[in-house]
Amino acid sequence: MNKFILTSFLLALTFNHCFAQKIIPATQPNPAQQAMIKRGYGMFIHFGINTFNDIEWSDGKLPADSYNPSQLDPDQWVRTAKEAGFRYVLLVTKHHDGFCLWDSKYTSYDVASSPVKTDVVKAVADACKKYGIQFAIYYSLWDRNAPVYKDKDPQKYVDYMLGQLTELYTGYGTIAELWLDGGWDRKPSDWGIDQIYSLVKKFNPACAVSVNHTIVNAEGQRDFTLPSDMTVNNKYFFQYFPSDFRLWDPKIITKFDKKQYLHEGKSYYLPFEHTLCISKNWNWFEKKQALPTRDLDELEELFYWCTENDNCLVMNVAPDQTGKIREYVAHTAIGLGKRLHLQPNNPLPKNGHFISLNKAVKASSVYDDKNKSYSGRSLNDGKMDSRWAAADTLASVEIELNPAESFNKISIFEYQDTKNLPDGFSQIRIPRIQKYSIDILQDGQWQTIFLSDEPMGDCKVVKLAVSYTTSKLRFKVLKATAPPSIYELSVIDMPSAQAEL
Amino acid sequence: MNKFILTSFLLALTFNHCFAQKIIPATQPNPAQQAMIKRGYGMFIHFGINTFNDIEWSDGKLPADSYNPSQLDPDQWVRTAKEAGFRYVLLVTKHHDGFCLWDSKYTSYDVASSPVKTDVVKAVADACKKYGIQFAIYYSLWDRNAPVYKDKDPQKYVDYMLGQLTELYTGYGTIAELWLDGGWDRKPSDWGIDQIYSLVKKFNPACAVSVNHTIVNAEGQRDFTLPSDMTVNNKYFFQYFPSDFRLWDPKIITKFDKKQYLHEGKSYYLPFEHTLCISKNWNWFEKKQALPTRDLDELEELFYWCTENDNCLVMNVAPDQTGKIREYVAHTAIGLGKRLHLQPNNPLPKNGHFISLNKAVKASSVYDDKNKSYSGRSLNDGKMDSRWAAADTLASVEIELNPAESFNKISIFEYQDTKNLPDGFSQIRIPRIQKYSIDILQDGQWQTIFLSDEPMGDCKVVKLAVSYTTSKLRFKVLKATAPPSIYELSVIDMPSAQAEL
Repeated sequence: MNKFILTSFLLALTFNHCFAQKIIPATQPNPAQQAMIKRGYGMFIHFGINTFNDIEWSDGKLPADSYNPSQLDPDQWVRTAKEAGFRYVLLVTKHHDGFCLWDSKYTSYDVASSPVKTDVVKAVADACKKYGIQFAIYYSLWDRNAPVYKDKDPQKYVDYMLGQLTELYTGYGTIAELWLDGGWDRKPSDWGIDQIYSLVKKFNPACAVSVNHTIVNAEGQRDFTLPSDMTVNNKYFFQYFPSDFRLWDPKIITKFDKKQYLHEGKSYYLPFEHTLCISKNWNWFEKKQALPTRDLDELEELFYWCTENDNCLVMNVAPDQTGKIREYVAHTAIGLGKRLHLQPNNPLPKNGHFISLNKAVKASSVYDDKNKSYSGRSLNDGKMDSRWAAADTLASVEIELNPAESFNKISIFEYQDTKNLPDGFSQIRIPRIQKYSIDILQDGQWQTIFLSDEPMGDCKVVKLAVSYTTSKLRFKVLKATAPPSIYELSVIDMPSAQAEL
Repeated sequence: MNKFILTSFLLALTFNHCFAQKIIPATQPNPAQQAMIKRGYGMFIHFGINTFNDIEWSDGKLPADSYNPSQLDPDQWVRTAKEAGFRYVLLVTKHHDGFCLWDSKYTSYDVASSPVKTDVVKAVADACKKYGIQFAIYYSLWDRNAPVYKDKDPQKYVDYMLGQLTELYTGYGTIAELWLDGGWDRKPSDWGIDQIYSLVKKFNPACAVSVNHTIVNAEGQRDFTLPSDMTVNNKYFFQYFPSDFRLWDPKIITKFDKKQYLHEGKSYYLPFEHTLCISKNWNWFEKKQALPTRDLDELEELFYWCTENDNCLVMNVAPDQTGKIREYVAHTAIGLGKRLHLQPNNPLPKNGHFISLNKAVKASSVYDDKNKSYSGRSLNDGKMDSRWAAADTLASVEIELNPAESFNKISIFEYQDTKNLPDGFSQIRIPRIQKYSIDILQDGQWQTIFLSDEPMGDCKVVKLAVSYTTSKLRFKVLKATAPPSIYELSVIDMPSAQAEL
């Protein structure tokens, strides 16, 4: 810690609570960030004009009266969040289409102009109070409906946002977090982020604020830093300042995530908040066609990955056209909470120790792409967006392990081919790997410890009944529809208390 | 209980322990049967000349020196049984091929004539003593090698068997059970079952004895009674008398299993012992090609089904050509034991209450076969060999339930198409159902509580995070490669202590 940062940090701690929750140079989380890290796990709710038009993004021209839930029940949304162990609800109050889920005096493109005039922001905020869950909001900077958005003077639209945010921050009680999105549509300096930040902190000092794609590779440029590259402190820069945390929807951070980011020569501590869909199909708004959820094994692994290392996760659980979360979707969220034994005030559970991270890997073949590396070592580099890709179908990889370290779980995230669904956004994922074994070297011989002839799926978790040790583990594809590719294969030592089969 | 039976039973109880363990008319288990029911869960071990020739059944002509394990390790077999929570080991001492796993003075077709002369019966019996597991033996009546088998006088071969069984019962300590097989090859009366039974009980009064296909529809005939028909007391007859329990390898008994069977006008109590393969592919002897095991969800459901109602299960876990149980196979067995928290002296765990059994079913379509019924009600009749078959691909069934009864688990055993493997015996099973939902009626509307787009597999177990109640449950196929067919769909209320997700 350099002297200046230390001094600032100590000064901050001695100032009043209000000041301390604004971002200042530091190497530790401030109280607002501490509260955010403690929350850790939130339910993201996408619901609005898109829900009723079977679309992910719309252009602000869909008629307000197409918003028409037949059994609107925000209490059910928050009750589900509570039962599922979420500690906050992050409600999309306005998406890029500009349609507002509350009665805003600044626009008529809102629920008040629709057949069902319920103030959804109020209903959710009230339910959060009722169930003892914190309330957070998503608000899109980009607005494809508001006429003032097109004004030559960008401050006009900033004033519009300040007006709407004042409505939100004065009418609905405490808001734990503000998630700003769509910043790519104009220059960062044109959004008035500093004005928004000041306004929010004035009303609500503990509210954590951020803008999607928070971090860039060079100050003043648009070259977003990938979360998987954020392994070095004080190398990358704020695109949007001030921000209290980092966002890069829906990417997943590296296992070696670092927290220090630069703005005008000073270093700031920033946790990361992940966004994931409970849906297997990456639909944020619910579609008329019921789409399956991810399975609990995959959700459990993603939960651990996204909430560890003082980062957070919001999981999207969207209501459908009736205005309720479908029962099977709610059930999956509740199932995950029960599996993880989530309790409101307990620390979030953690994954075991990854004994395979960055260990030497030998792949039987590697797909040769001059622009990109698909080497074997991508498979255990702790990065969810790099991957090993084989050149042939029946490929295998060997990972060297420390024979003194035991393990009882293996998780494999397979790269999959995708097929677009009719909404043009969400996708079906098609596994390539159809049959595979996991082998370990023992006394100079390969022993198969797991063998499956079922399609791998997005994430295969092999929970082992016994703890093994070995100097080398092999993953061997025995049948595949195309050359296999793996994002991450992790060999994990799970605490025995958590290792239910 | 009629007076005669009651008197016999009370008399039996007052006689000496030795006598009481022979089968006599009764409506309660005798001490030998009580011990058998208490054991409940055994490991079946098929190992022999077939193991080394990639074949299930051979004709007695394979050369003895083809039996050649490179790392024979019977201690590992029994250690695995112990770790997996099995309470007895049932070793195939001689299969239909006649090859003996001990050095029998009555034949040279045995291990003593092979390159690895280890007395496997002794090694297993000794390991059972070491690990505190009971020892049981399988012995094939049918013998395709012994020259005396072809003698015109059937007693000659009976004497051969009595000689071999005397070796087995005098050389290896206490034997808990004798499993006789292959009786179809000659008339029941030609096997000397009464002589075998007497011999066994002389050496080992507590040993439970039975012959495969124990029960028939009419006395003195060969018309085997299917286990799924055994729902009526005192209707079916012994084919082989005396026998201490019922066998019908590898069929599964009905949920309404009855215990009373007739012989010469008297009624006897007989538990049932199930035989299952841990392999998905129904191979009893291990093949060179590694074949996958069933998954734990399926094994757990089968375990409950086969061990409940005072019946037993032996699960086949076979060593390979090296003479060891493959690690992944051992691991599956151990995994099941750990999941079920099996402990040597605890009662075996039980499934929850089946609230759907024999409730009214409405199928959207039924495949029309004049000889056989595939009606919807086959799907919840508690019989694993009757099944609902649809006439079209996108079919559904509705089951009426008692809305006062809650449930938190659904198990579905799908009928599958099969493809033979090169050994001509074991099979690959191919699921038809690719996408499906489970819906319940609530306030007059169908609510989907589970939705999957993954192939169903042999047995899909849906563990629910919450307890539901409904007047009607629907299983709906949304995608299938052929008209679906279901053996059993069970709606189950699992005790919450067991309901881990």
